[in-house]
Parts: sequence; structure tokens; C-alpha cells
Amino acid sequence: MAISSHAAAQPGDGYVQSFARGLEVIRTFSAAAPRQTLTEVAGRAGLTRAGARRILLTLHTLGYVESDGKLFALTPRILDLGFAYLSSMPIWNLAEPVMEALVARVKESCSAAALEGTDIVYVIRVPTRKIMSISLGVGSRLPAYCTSMGRVLLAGLADDEVLRRLRASKRSELTRHTITDVDALLAKVQQARRQGWCLVNQELEEGLVSIAAPLANRAGRTVAALNISGQANRTSARLMQETMLPPLLEAARSISQLLAAQRT
Amino acid sequence: MAISSHAAAQPGDGYVQSFARGLEVIRTFSAAAPRQTLTEVAGRAGLTRAGARRILLTLHTLGYVESDGKLFALTPRILDLGFAYLSSMPIWNLAEPVMEALVARVKESCSAAALEGTDIVYVIRVPTRKIMSISLGVGSRLPAYCTSMGRVLLAGLADDEVLRRLRASKRSELTRHTITDVDALLAKVQQARRQGWCLVNQELEEGLVSIAAPLANRAGRTVAALNISGQANRTSARLMQETMLPPLLEAARSISQLLAAQRT
Repeated sequence: MAISSHAAAQPGDGYVQSFARGLEVIRTFSAAAPRQTLTEVAGRAGLTRAGARRILLTLHTLGYVESDGKLFALTPRILDLGFAYLSSMPIWNLAEPVMEALVARVKESCSAAALEGTDIVYVIRVPTRKIMSISLGVGSRLPAYCTSMGRVLLAGLADDEVLRRLRASKRSELTRHTITDVDALLAKVQQARRQGWCLVNQELEEGLVSIAAPLANRAGRTVAALNISGQANRTSARLMQETMLPPLLEAARSISQLLAAQRT
Repeated sequence: MAISSHAAAQPGDGYVQSFARGLEVIRTFSAAAPRQTLTEVAGRAGLTRAGARRILLTLHTLGYVESDGKLFALTPRILDLGFAYLSSMPIWNLAEPVMEALVARVKESCSAAALEGTDIVYVIRVPTRKIMSISLGVGSRLPAYCTSMGRVLLAGLADDEVLRRLRASKRSELTRHTITDVDALLAKVQQARRQGWCLVNQELEEGLVSIAAPLANRAGRTVAALNISGQANRTSARLMQETMLPPLLEAARSISQLLAAQRT
């Protein structure tokens, strides 16, 4: 890409580094560390105290961080940044009503995710009325190699790129079913590409079955994935494929058609 | 606050300005402008082409922006930033299951929001199965003065601060019911404070009725608001108050108690 050769955007550039550090500081805040001292932020971001202090002061001046003078916390203004992305993608506006209708029909949660490196990132969650945790809310990540959405998203890439990302993944045996061998995973991705959908049976978590289909733009390129997930003790993988795959594929087709009809 | 007097965080500081511009560039992307040229970004962010170019290259290097060499778009990595906020607030994890149960009971959408200047910012949305638009998804903003959540959030501040924010608000007659007079609004906020809840009848949008209650932390400080919204042609304001206020207050109390029980 032409722009990445520009000198100003090299990783060693001071401006890039400052900006990267600022965003890293934002990311040090988590459920385990909702309010942090200067020392804690510096430690988690790998910065000196002076460096962390400068960035926290900057974020405070800009209204993204609040502080009682000792502890620092993020403010809801941070959500403006993620929302800029969500509202910038017409696909999410088109997908949500279709997903709502799908959840009403299959009575299981439905999600959409995009590929980001070796991870999938949730962009829409439509829960069933069953209680669910926000731990898989919008913006949360899961590894691509062991998830149904991850495999259909990988299937949208050329095989050499799939292999590159699989090799770059930290592949762990999350359950006794998890496939971690690169060649076996490539075969699963190729199968997903051939059949146009993917079922993953308890590879991410014991008891969790998930089925996914790609969402394509007008050019036929996969831009996101749609899935339904259920509990193996309530709905077996076989039953899920029989009853939920047809409505899932229909919903994915509807969204892809709406997307193709967009003027953009 | 001690930290804001530090010279490094003054608005005129180059570092602060650079960071602010970077975040502004992120915010120029929207549903109306999902993909932008360099010239468009510069225009919307109020930057020179050279300045906008430097920031886009930086964002590209960091993986927050993708480009075909001509058009720029945000990547899902942007969602990491908002997620840091959402996951850093234990309240949202505690609130969501209670909100799910409330929606199942009242069959109307339920939301939680925080105050940010003169706006409310949505932090959780639990829709009913009725089709809803993502236009009021997490991270979206509405003015505080004309919304039920805004008024209970303002009620958590001292009167002089309420007045300051009401005066700073762009108060528009969004419907023929909208109150825009500062003194009349202050009276509504004081009423919300006295009674511990607030009903707003079609002041934001014709046909939209909303009822809200504050969520308080252990110290009794209002940290967020919870609401139920419905359609006036389906449920009158009076019926909404009779049937939905008791379960709303109960849910708000449950969440506040869970919050007070947190170790943080």
C-alpha cells in the first residue's frame, strides 16, 4: 500500500509512538483495574511514571479520563470513539433488524463479528431473554481459530494468508475438542469455504456449540460473520445444524443482499 | 483538581493538541461518511491536508484505520477503546442481568446511561424483541435536559451545577411538549430529586414516553440512570407510571444494592 511507505508513519516515529502510548493507556483500564494509580498505569502500559503521567494528564484535559487526584478512571466519552466505528459501517444498521427477527425465531443468541488479525471482534450482540453476561459484549474479542465466526472469516482470505494467521495464533487446547494443528485447522477453514458455513462443537468452551455464516458485500468479499450459539446439553450439534442452519443462512443472505443494494 | 494545573496538560501544549486531533479524526467517521478521502477527513476535522495525512498514517500504522490508498475507513480495533471503558465499570456487569429480567417483565426496552457534560451517553441497551434501530446503541448520545435519564442524572448534582449545565445546553423545542426554559427545567430536575424518579412525556420525540430512576453507589452518589421507554399510543404516560414505575424502582434498587456490595 502506497501510504505505509511514508516516513511519517514508521513505527519509530515520535508522533506515532506518542499516539500509540496514549491508546495503550486507555486499554490498561479493565474490569480488574477500573481505577488505577499513576504507578499502576505506568506498570501495565510499560511506561515510565513521567511518561504515563503526561498521557494521563492529556487524557484528563481532553475529558477522556477523570481523577480524584490519586486514582484515574475512564469517562463515558471514550465510547464516542468506538461508536464512530459502529455508526460508520452501514452493515451493522442493516444487520440488526434481521438479527432480531432471527433470535425471535430460533430463541438463541445471535452475534456478528469482524476479523481483526488473529481475533474476531464482536460488533453486534442480540441476546435471547436468557440471562447473559456483558463479558461478550460489543468490542470483546475471541481467537478466530477455534470459533465458528473466526473460521468463516478466515475462509474469506486466500489460503496463504489463512496459514499465516493460523501460525500467528496462540493456539491452545481450550477444551478436549479444540483443534490446534495448523493443517487440520486449514482443512476446517477450507471446508467452511466450500459449504458456505461452519459449525464449531465445544472447541472454545465445553458445552458451547456455534454455527456461523459469512456476510458478503456487493463484490462478494466476506466483510463480517453472523452466528447462532447454543448449549450442547439443550440442543445437540446435529439438531442445531438441522433446525438453525436454514434460518441462519437465510438471514445471512438477506443481510448480504441489503448490503449489495447500498449505494456506497 | 491538582493534576489539571500541571503545565504538560494545558490545551496549548503540542502533545495534547496532537492527541486531541488524532481522536477528532477518529470521530469524523460516521454513517454518512464511513469511507473518506484525505481531503474529506481534513475538512471535517478542521485540519490542513498535511496534518490530516500525518494522523491518518499514524492511525494506519497502529491498525485503527485501513485504506486502499485513496479511501480511509476505521477498523474494528477501534472498538477495543470503548470496551476498555465498558469492562472497567463493574456496574454494567451487575446491571445487565437485572435489566434483562425487567424487560422480560414489562415488555419494553430498558437502557442505562451516564452523564457526560450536557449529554447522556448510553452504556447498556436491552431491547424488546420489537425491531429497534442501532441508532440508539451503546455510545450514542442524547441531550440531558429533555430526557428522563438526563433529568435524574442532573438531579444527582447540586443546583448551581444543574443550572450551569442547563444553560450550556442547546435547548431546542424538539416537539411541542419540550420544556426549554431553564427555571422550568430546574423545577423538573428538583422534582425528580424529591420523588426519586422522572417521567418525560414526548419532549424528545412525539409519541415517546420514558421513565427513569437513578443508580447510586455505596456513598449514595448517582452514577448512572436506568429507564424504560414506550410508545404513547400503546401505553399512556399515566398507565406507564402505574404499571412500570414499581418494577423500574425495584430494579434500580437491586442494581444499587449490588453496587454497594462491591468491594471496589
